[in-house]
Amino acid sequence: MLQLYFFPMACSLASRIALLEAGIEAQYHLAHIWTKQVVDDGSDFRAISPKGAVPVLVLENGDRLTESAAVLQYIADVKPEAGLAPRFGDPDRYRLQEWLSFIGAEIHKAFLYPTFWYKDDGSLAKPRARIAQTLSVPAMHLANREFLVGNSFTVADAHLTWALLLLRPAGVDIAQWPALSSYLERMQARPAVREAIATEMALRKTMAA
Amino acid sequence: MLQLYFFPMACSLASRIALLEAGIEAQYHLAHIWTKQVVDDGSDFRAISPKGAVPVLVLENGDRLTESAAVLQYIADVKPEAGLAPRFGDPDRYRLQEWLSFIGAEIHKAFLYPTFWYKDDGSLAKPRARIAQTLSVPAMHLANREFLVGNSFTVADAHLTWALLLLRPAGVDIAQWPALSSYLERMQARPAVREAIATEMALRKTMAA
Repeated sequence: MLQLYFFPMACSLASRIALLEAGIEAQYHLAHIWTKQVVDDGSDFRAISPKGAVPVLVLENGDRLTESAAVLQYIADVKPEAGLAPRFGDPDRYRLQEWLSFIGAEIHKAFLYPTFWYKDDGSLAKPRARIAQTLSVPAMHLANREFLVGNSFTVADAHLTWALLLLRPAGVDIAQWPALSSYLERMQARPAVREAIATEMALRKTMAA
Repeated sequence: MLQLYFFPMACSLASRIALLEAGIEAQYHLAHIWTKQVVDDGSDFRAISPKGAVPVLVLENGDRLTESAAVLQYIADVKPEAGLAPRFGDPDRYRLQEWLSFIGAEIHKAFLYPTFWYKDDGSLAKPRARIAQTLSVPAMHLANREFLVGNSFTVADAHLTWALLLLRPAGVDIAQWPALSSYLERMQARPAVREAIATEMALRKTMAA
């Protein structure tokens, strides 16, 4: 059985959404990304992955895969009939990779990451000044499309849904992009997305207490 | 014929290296990433790609693909016999995607990007404090391996070679990671890598004048 190391509402949420959308049963292990402890047994998360970051997907053969772009494509390919990624050879597969890269690099690492890790000093001015331009890219794309790639839900939508959910805690009002706002509402209406968020929000609240 | 929009020594260098390693003939267009002009004809680069970023690969059918992770995989798949990426279905394909994501997000967007764009204020302390930990990941991996994925040169090596070349102008001494230092030397000894760097360094010097 696949195993996912996650932290509640961190970017590993996208992998949980993908597993639920695909109907793949998995074991979930909460890895605390600040203390670097696996909550199950108090062991060192860096022994699982030296990066100390989520997601980590433990494959059936015990190998460990990191980085959302790789983990999400792996999950999609485990169950191709779920249609979570265009199949290899379909030109849209590169569009999927293009979006996974943009969300992971431009939205997550260039904006969300500094927002939540660097908020105590003056270093946020530059990333904040750029985020409107960054978000205009998916906003334009989604102005007349229901999904990021093709005509159905893919792991790129799982990834973007997570990133958009973090805009509010990051202090950015999604209402300024109506296309993104209605997209996020549509995504949150999906049972798998709703279940993933409910599970992780409940865990997150427990941890904050 | 494929066309690549590039800026000398920007991350599009990895795509040029991949094209040369694969022996794929291509047209190259210099896009100025500060002025957003295509140097060929002075036209607006944002009309080619609203992101205004390189690389942009124009495919045979006229479609435009962005993001190094997608462009590099596309180039590799155009000529699979060149072996620049494990084929679809090979588990190592996900390792390739894992490295492309890590280099694009953690090295490029979390460190190099702020280094070259934010250097005029105090916002670099946090990214600089993390770069040693970030670079320890490929350094450990390459301690006893010649290449990032499998036993031969892939587009992940093209990507990492570019990122490591930028460490010196970013003020980071690669000598503190002997595994990275000797890896970069090996990569720079490859004819395609040498040719790509020579071409772009010559163009870069012209522009600075």
